Amino acid sequence: MARMARIAPLSGFPEWSPSERLVEAEVLSTLRDVFALHGYGEIETRAVEPIDRLAGDSDAAKEIYALNRLRAEPGSDASLGLHFDLTVPFARYVEERQAHLAFPFRRYQIQKVWRGERPQEGRFREFYQADIDVVARDVLPGHFEAEVPVVMARALAALTGTVGAPRAVMSMNDRRLVEGFYAGVGIADIPAALRAVDKLAKIGPQGVSNELEAGGVSAVAAEAVLALAAIRTPDARFAAQAEQLWVTAGAQGDEARSTFEAGVAALSALVNAVNAAIPGMAFADLSIARGLDYYTGAVYETVLEGHEDLGSVCAGGRYDSLIGGGGFPGVGMSIGVTRLVSRLVSAGLASGSRAVPSAVYVAVTDEDSRAASNAVADVLRARGIPCEVASSAAKFGKQIHAADKRGIPFVWFPGAEGDEVKDIRTGEQVAADAHAWTPPEEDLKARVVRG
Amino acid sequence: MARMARIAPLSGFPEWSPSERLVEAEVLSTLRDVFALHGYGEIETRAVEPIDRLAGDSDAAKEIYALNRLRAEPGSDASLGLHFDLTVPFARYVEERQAHLAFPFRRYQIQKVWRGERPQEGRFREFYQADIDVVARDVLPGHFEAEVPVVMARALAALTGTVGAPRAVMSMNDRRLVEGFYAGVGIADIPAALRAVDKLAKIGPQGVSNELEAGGVSAVAAEAVLALAAIRTPDARFAAQAEQLWVTAGAQGDEARSTFEAGVAALSALVNAVNAAIPGMAFADLSIARGLDYYTGAVYETVLEGHEDLGSVCAGGRYDSLIGGGGFPGVGMSIGVTRLVSRLVSAGLASGSRAVPSAVYVAVTDEDSRAASNAVADVLRARGIPCEVASSAAKFGKQIHAADKRGIPFVWFPGAEGDEVKDIRTGEQVAADAHAWTPPEEDLKARVVRG
Repeated sequence: MARMARIAPLSGFPEWSPSERLVEAEVLSTLRDVFALHGYGEIETRAVEPIDRLAGDSDAAKEIYALNRLRAEPGSDASLGLHFDLTVPFARYVEERQAHLAFPFRRYQIQKVWRGERPQEGRFREFYQADIDVVARDVLPGHFEAEVPVVMARALAALTGTVGAPRAVMSMNDRRLVEGFYAGVGIADIPAALRAVDKLAKIGPQGVSNELEAGGVSAVAAEAVLALAAIRTPDARFAAQAEQLWVTAGAQGDEARSTFEAGVAALSALVNAVNAAIPGMAFADLSIARGLDYYTGAVYETVLEGHEDLGSVCAGGRYDSLIGGGGFPGVGMSIGVTRLVSRLVSAGLASGSRAVPSAVYVAVTDEDSRAASNAVADVLRARGIPCEVASSAAKFGKQIHAADKRGIPFVWFPGAEGDEVKDIRTGEQVAADAHAWTPPEEDLKARVVRG
Repeated sequence: MARMARIAPLSGFPEWSPSERLVEAEVLSTLRDVFALHGYGEIETRAVEPIDRLAGDSDAAKEIYALNRLRAEPGSDASLGLHFDLTVPFARYVEERQAHLAFPFRRYQIQKVWRGERPQEGRFREFYQADIDVVARDVLPGHFEAEVPVVMARALAALTGTVGAPRAVMSMNDRRLVEGFYAGVGIADIPAALRAVDKLAKIGPQGVSNELEAGGVSAVAAEAVLALAAIRTPDARFAAQAEQLWVTAGAQGDEARSTFEAGVAALSALVNAVNAAIPGMAFADLSIARGLDYYTGAVYETVLEGHEDLGSVCAGGRYDSLIGGGGFPGVGMSIGVTRLVSRLVSAGLASGSRAVPSAVYVAVTDEDSRAASNAVADVLRARGIPCEVASSAAKFGKQIHAADKRGIPFVWFPGAEGDEVKDIRTGEQVAADAHAWTPPEEDLKARVVRG
């Protein structure tokens, strides 16, 4: 056996302690509740997809983990890779099952994804994403572009309640607005321009300008692109500013203009709708580009107040042609759960109230009476009280210490004359009946405490 | 973009419909509750381990999926593979964090694992396992060998309640009993003999006998091995039969005898303890071998009554030397969740009450009043009632049809004169106030229905 191999954490593959996992589990549980409350049903997809489908997005291809059987017979496996997001597998799931799904189809999906990129703060090789999407047949009404960020905004707000997540702020844009404008100022390679602008926060305006000009964009057009990206309003006032810029930048072309205007109108409606549902949540931000080619309408990014350095924790957009050759337009957003949890944990914002589920540690007087201690534990469990029985009939002081080490608040002493239970935080010890005694509500289950 | 690649299910990588996923989610939720009630805390480990650690078990090595970055710089990645169970990663987790864990450490872990074996009924390439283990420092008292199957038996019994899982029956053995006996009858390669006996159900007594004799075991010893494997009792009566067989088979050797007797005593105590907790659950079955080398004491297998063809759905055992060179003896069992769910679904034992979470479909009179419908939905949601708003202001007949197609029981009609709600199963339509109306408890959430 080769079990002696070196033990070491793998960079980019986070693992939580039991108490940290409690925070993650609470995050996932909160998200599930909010998604279901809004009519989103859960699916899971397999972890693998054919490489030729995964590799469609050129940027992501270098990050894909391909699979090989360690001792495969040649040609025995399809060429498979681990999914790097939940959108590509969801698109495939919808195509595969289109005959059996009711459209518009709302779904949520919470799974791990894998990307072989360089690990750094908030960026992992294995991480949880939590996605919601709505996919329609043929036509996706615009109101879904508001529904999805509203549901996500509520999910993030719920996390503030359950795990103390910082307040979220969403920035939104519309691809048509940007693409119409870029075409209007004469940019030929619009996807390349979007990719350059997507780096604005990272490389700054001069960096973006350099990249645009290196790609053949004129200095004047590059300046217009940066001026557009500077527009950000907490309401629909961006519209007048963008319209004004169209004129001052000398943008032109009927098709470009009508695309631009469709985007302006849609983004105005979107920002108003989201802010009507959750006042102060949404900003129109014309710098939001999103790197992915397939977005065709609304695009979204979300940061946590005071934690902007973490980058976006919830992003997405509308895609009209991703699924089934355009027959299934959709809109979706994805929460980077691991990124969020890693910050909650590392910033001390949330932790588990104890390292184990047990509320009660049932002491064992001697090994001959272990069955009696087990019986007490079973009575408590039947009443929903998590507990464990001492591993050995050591001195009671040692047993109390074992409970204390795990953060278990109560130790139960079975006795021939009647049982007693001790709150080891106060030292108070009282007579108790396992059929009737109940711990205080806040002690019943291990829970997330805010820090 | 290469998105046009052929869409097809991958053999061995199951995916459920939203309604089937509901069954799986209920299974997982039931297991979590039972595990936590018994003091087991949750962890998750990364999906990957260094290949040299995974490949320790020679039988499993050929099933390992190795990872390679699709466009990796040479030498940039460690040699990693996907875990094929949760025991190997858990062992590594314990070694890595031994300074921070309180021992005995009880944990549960529910994750997908991957094995590149040939898919067949109940056997998958990607599947959920749900494991519990207790790991101690230096010494693991024998009562944990009873605790773990008792917790698992309760978990399986709970599944009968929540998803209609068939009744489980556990078979148990003790490695020392078997190894002592094998040594006593003169078998040299005991692991090979165990692997042969492990195939008894598959290849029959003659097949096992052939394999044993091909491995150098005498015909007389092979006969003794098969006679031992034929002993099965619902209590400790196996002990007398095994002792008798020791004599009639002419087994000998002091060390072999004392190992054998330690196993007989431990198995007697184990079967009695599990049957005391859950009458009729446990059988001593001396054919239970388990393929894995690392078991050193109790071993367990579990079948579902009436579904024995599915094979074992919950198995495990005690291992003394797996972790940290023997410093952390443990005992654990693993439920093959996907195997179980696939049978529940394929045999029609359980399904979702509806395909979506929504209890209420809020109709939209016209697009101008969509905000009013959204407001109704939000009032219902604030009261914990899952709902969705109609995707278009189609004729009410069409909207009712859309609800019906999803199995949503109620359609809500907002009205200037007051709202009404229709139970579309009975056709009954009544005046209703979103601040007060509540659906019947059984309609509130999508749930698992049996049958």
